Amino acid sequence: MSDLHIGIIGIIAGVLTTSSFIPQIIKILSTKKTGDISLIMYIVFMTGMSLWLVYGIFLGELPIILANVAGLVLCLFVILAKLRFDKAER
Amino acid sequence: MSDLHIGIIGIIAGVLTTSSFIPQIIKILSTKKTGDISLIMYIVFMTGMSLWLVYGIFLGELPIILANVAGLVLCLFVILAKLRFDKAER
Repeated sequence: MSDLHIGIIGIIAGVLTTSSFIPQIIKILSTKKTGDISLIMYIVFMTGMSLWLVYGIFLGELPIILANVAGLVLCLFVILAKLRFDKAER
Repeated sequence: MSDLHIGIIGIIAGVLTTSSFIPQIIKILSTKKTGDISLIMYIVFMTGMSLWLVYGIFLGELPIILANVAGLVLCLFVILAKLRFDKAER
């Protein structure tokens, strides 16, 4: 397996794990309900992704870097939505 | 930054992103409610993690391998819980 092929697998992996948050965001936007979603999960997940970003920068692996930057943005959206809609539900 | 230090950052990152699903699982087990959680998110996420696993194996990066194996198990648990509790809610 060449470096190029490994890189392509990493990019597809990154696109999938990152874009996985999009259906969750669509669901939140359509139902405006976030009560069953764990806030702690997203906070811990974002902390971990920040470290994956550092790790990717030191390895010089672009798929890891891009996946985690995009993932951080999407997870921040879920957290902000949860803070807003949980408040509205109360 | 030495390879050892980069590896340690990767291991901490992996522990955090993987263990982030534990608070979600605890929340599900205590409320038995999963209606707001996106099933598609977890299916796409697991597909992506399977590819990250392949990527980690080819790079020979143990943090990536371990994080994704553990993540796959935890996400499978969320999916099975959702399939069970969503059915019970209906």
